[in-house]
Amino acid sequence: MNLKKRLIQFATAAKKASYHLAELSPETKKRILNEIAAHLRKSSREIMRANQKDLTLARRMGLNDAMIDRLMLNSKRVDQMADAVSQVAKLPDPIGRTLHTWRRPNGLRISKVTVPLGVILIIYESRPNVTSECASLCLKSGNAVLLRGGREAFHSNRAIVQVYAKVLKKHRIPEASVSLVPVLDRRAIDELLKMEDLINLVIPRGGEALIRRVARHSRIPVVKHYKGICHVYVDSSADLNMALRIAVNAKCQRTGVCNAMETLLVHRAIAPKFLPPYARLLKKENCEIRGDDATRRFVPTAKKATEEDWRTEYLDRILSIRVVRGMDQAIEHIQKYGSAHTDSIVTKNQKAARKFVTKVDSSSVMVNASTRFSDGNEYGFGAEIGISTDKVHARGPMGLEGLISYKYIVQGSGQVRT
Amino acid sequence: MNLKKRLIQFATAAKKASYHLAELSPETKKRILNEIAAHLRKSSREIMRANQKDLTLARRMGLNDAMIDRLMLNSKRVDQMADAVSQVAKLPDPIGRTLHTWRRPNGLRISKVTVPLGVILIIYESRPNVTSECASLCLKSGNAVLLRGGREAFHSNRAIVQVYAKVLKKHRIPEASVSLVPVLDRRAIDELLKMEDLINLVIPRGGEALIRRVARHSRIPVVKHYKGICHVYVDSSADLNMALRIAVNAKCQRTGVCNAMETLLVHRAIAPKFLPPYARLLKKENCEIRGDDATRRFVPTAKKATEEDWRTEYLDRILSIRVVRGMDQAIEHIQKYGSAHTDSIVTKNQKAARKFVTKVDSSSVMVNASTRFSDGNEYGFGAEIGISTDKVHARGPMGLEGLISYKYIVQGSGQVRT
Repeated sequence: MNLKKRLIQFATAAKKASYHLAELSPETKKRILNEIAAHLRKSSREIMRANQKDLTLARRMGLNDAMIDRLMLNSKRVDQMADAVSQVAKLPDPIGRTLHTWRRPNGLRISKVTVPLGVILIIYESRPNVTSECASLCLKSGNAVLLRGGREAFHSNRAIVQVYAKVLKKHRIPEASVSLVPVLDRRAIDELLKMEDLINLVIPRGGEALIRRVARHSRIPVVKHYKGICHVYVDSSADLNMALRIAVNAKCQRTGVCNAMETLLVHRAIAPKFLPPYARLLKKENCEIRGDDATRRFVPTAKKATEEDWRTEYLDRILSIRVVRGMDQAIEHIQKYGSAHTDSIVTKNQKAARKFVTKVDSSSVMVNASTRFSDGNEYGFGAEIGISTDKVHARGPMGLEGLISYKYIVQGSGQVRT
Repeated sequence: MNLKKRLIQFATAAKKASYHLAELSPETKKRILNEIAAHLRKSSREIMRANQKDLTLARRMGLNDAMIDRLMLNSKRVDQMADAVSQVAKLPDPIGRTLHTWRRPNGLRISKVTVPLGVILIIYESRPNVTSECASLCLKSGNAVLLRGGREAFHSNRAIVQVYAKVLKKHRIPEASVSLVPVLDRRAIDELLKMEDLINLVIPRGGEALIRRVARHSRIPVVKHYKGICHVYVDSSADLNMALRIAVNAKCQRTGVCNAMETLLVHRAIAPKFLPPYARLLKKENCEIRGDDATRRFVPTAKKATEEDWRTEYLDRILSIRVVRGMDQAIEHIQKYGSAHTDSIVTKNQKAARKFVTKVDSSSVMVNASTRFSDGNEYGFGAEIGISTDKVHARGPMGLEGLISYKYIVQGSGQVRT
């Protein structure tokens, strides 16, 4: 059978499964997820054995230590994976909720009720725990899921999905509810991305190149964020110690993530007091500074920042700093160079804070808090399936709410239109 | 200047205007819309004069009577256009609403607040009143709008947009807030559809071919419905007279619209009683019937329906009818051939109704009501900017709620992540 036909069969099976999933009761979904968590724990040894195969191949292919570490599963990590599924089981069921109900003058009663999206394709890179994370969230929200993980994690992912399959089978739920894309060839993704009648949403999780490729080829809606160029703006009226603490945390607490700060904007009135101690703190953190001319007056060791720096997501121990004339210039900078992900102001002035949160058009805008809080778990969603810097459908950190749609149910008593 | 550069400038101006619009107060937007309504009435003669140019050209180009009628503006139609703007002015402002607010254990207060989408591109066909409809809804929701109307309506559309421009200018709001795409060449649309950084949403309104072309070429999210293959299912327990009334209304009240019924499904237990009188009613309405074999036993004059008929949106006085063994077969038929637009059941059995609304995965599912009610105005949205059969972002009839997004505002007191 050729690739295209095989993939259409594959996606059609998921579509059929999705009708089944849409009707499961909250109690059933909860019970199934708890059983899956238990089975993951029980299957720890099989999963680690499969993971060993991936690790052996990965070492042979010369993957670096950081990538090997991301790929590696031990019994603690399998336990954490199982815990995460138990957490998802506990979340409120997002399906069948009446969002709004009203009656029209002609007597029609209209309700807007949440429903699953249908079939979701998730494309991601190496970490195998993402497989279980995505599968559990899709199950909870009544969606079938097609998982396309990294090639390096193939055996691990298969072992994890087999645990899901076993429990689903026991409950007479189609195994196609949770499945790995059966072909690792890139052309397989390209074919799937054309199936707008069978797949309802695509979520690419990974580097910018992967996401751009998916977005360019997809006829299916894609929830995405290309990059996180997050800013902290230190206002003239900022509490100095708070500003230091937030600006260090936003940059250094973890650098390889999309909600880390990449550019610091400092009001010129506070720059003389703020920048020298801040530079000392960053030095201790081994973080390089690239500044504009004004910054370099206070931080002589800083390299000169170029236009390119303002547009760069370093994901590393590098920070660009610009001194601004005031908040308007800071906002203009963010509008021009930002990625609409997360931007924060440090200020004691409430009016300034209000202006900043109104004018900055990013998915998360913060006052006196580190950008690192922009995260589904930190927001209390109980989980995160992805993050969106688009404005349609879901925006910002995306939990179960990003995986649902709604329908209108209209109850009449014989009404016709005149 | 080449086409691409010119269009980038054009869209960039709209983007800048959108920042301005996002900050307007509800009162200002209301006042502006009321002034626009008044100016449309005052400019009635200019608008009709521009419309005359279009009509003259249209007749010369040999457009048919129906199309000429759609294009034609008289003083009554201009008044209706102005009334519609006044109606939009009265709607509740959708921007700046706090959807949800909560506090995290670490003290962070998070709010989810509605914001405009930004820049919306609307591509539509001849009727010039759509120009004002779209412009007023985008203004109300704080969005800049790029309008690409039909070539035939160019002068009319320009006259209408000039009224908007005049009032906006008076209030020192950038004219780029509401503008016509300055180049009618098709390549202009193709260029705009690539500008994902400048345009946030595309709404194509028109025939299926137009919508498919836009969806295929767009890198920007598109809200769309390709077609409306709407079903009415007459259950065994239906009230016979109600079923006749609804099935006649859904098909015949207006045939050229997406929420008209195209296929009727009849339970075999009620078919002998229902079909003969229904066929007589449709005959009076000059509506042709194409039926399966079972239908033709009760309606000997019916043509034989082919597989193709179940997939066809006639938009005309033609109806396909199938007799089904029961509700399951009706639901399967709808899943296979439907377009997820609007489907209705006629039944006295509440359990059957519940099953139907749960299992049928369409944007609107109705009980004992005509499919013709699937409409933003009929749902009480006060307006309709389009209708979506997709499941992401907006689904079903789409009023102002379809033109907004949200942001997270996080208020801290110095929190950092550990």
